[in-house]
Amino acid sequence: MNAGCPLCEAVGGRLVFEHPQFRVIHADEPGFPAFYRLVWRDHVREFSDLAPTLRALCMEAVALIETCLREQLAPAKINLATLGNVVPHLHWHVIARFEWDAHFPAPVWATAQRERDVAREAEIALRLAALESLMVERLRSL
Amino acid sequence: MNAGCPLCEAVGGRLVFEHPQFRVIHADEPGFPAFYRLVWRDHVREFSDLAPTLRALCMEAVALIETCLREQLAPAKINLATLGNVVPHLHWHVIARFEWDAHFPAPVWATAQRERDVAREAEIALRLAALESLMVERLRSL
Repeated sequence: MNAGCPLCEAVGGRLVFEHPQFRVIHADEPGFPAFYRLVWRDHVREFSDLAPTLRALCMEAVALIETCLREQLAPAKINLATLGNVVPHLHWHVIARFEWDAHFPAPVWATAQRERDVAREAEIALRLAALESLMVERLRSL
Repeated sequence: MNAGCPLCEAVGGRLVFEHPQFRVIHADEPGFPAFYRLVWRDHVREFSDLAPTLRALCMEAVALIETCLREQLAPAKINLATLGNVVPHLHWHVIARFEWDAHFPAPVWATAQRERDVAREAEIALRLAALESLMVERLRSL
């Protein structure tokens, strides 16, 4: 617990799953309807601050989220990243990217290349409940 | 080997280390003097396409690169990412970020926030040989 850290003091999004070591949240990032984050419970700055067994747990959870996104949404690509320049509390972005999203193929942090397709975003949003149900079932086995 | 894939057909940067499963390159990304990439040898699209043991190997190598960057350069933050929207051949970006780099704290893919500090970039560049020597020594133990 680090006073003033937004990921210590708040969930950071819509809670999908809680594990003793981490939580999975759906991030409210306009334009990216299937944007999840794995947030490490403890206030850890860098990935390499985790012990090897915890790194393995962390990345198996990330891979599991990725697999569910691929199976349920068939995205053009998955993007994984841990940056933390602004909020240095270990969290992994797991983002399903689509050819129609406003930034594709550029990173989500780059300048938009086209208008958003809100109809397609809404179609994806309707599929998140089934996706998250599967994700939670599998995350419980970790 | 996938015809037309730039990471199957070329090294993709200055080769630092070659492992049977992956290579580590120094990326020539202006403004980011300590930008490395781990490129998987086989043409694999997504992280979750790797078997669990290979995912573990991949991320232990990424963590090792990260640790060397931290020890040798004391960056403000490490950024890790696998995107592959343009080149869908598994590769991990491992980037040492500094408070003085033109984009910090924004991602390297976002709009620059200030001018580059080429003097400080040059100072970092002078330290890469020692850094890479350590990195190679440790990568050999994987």
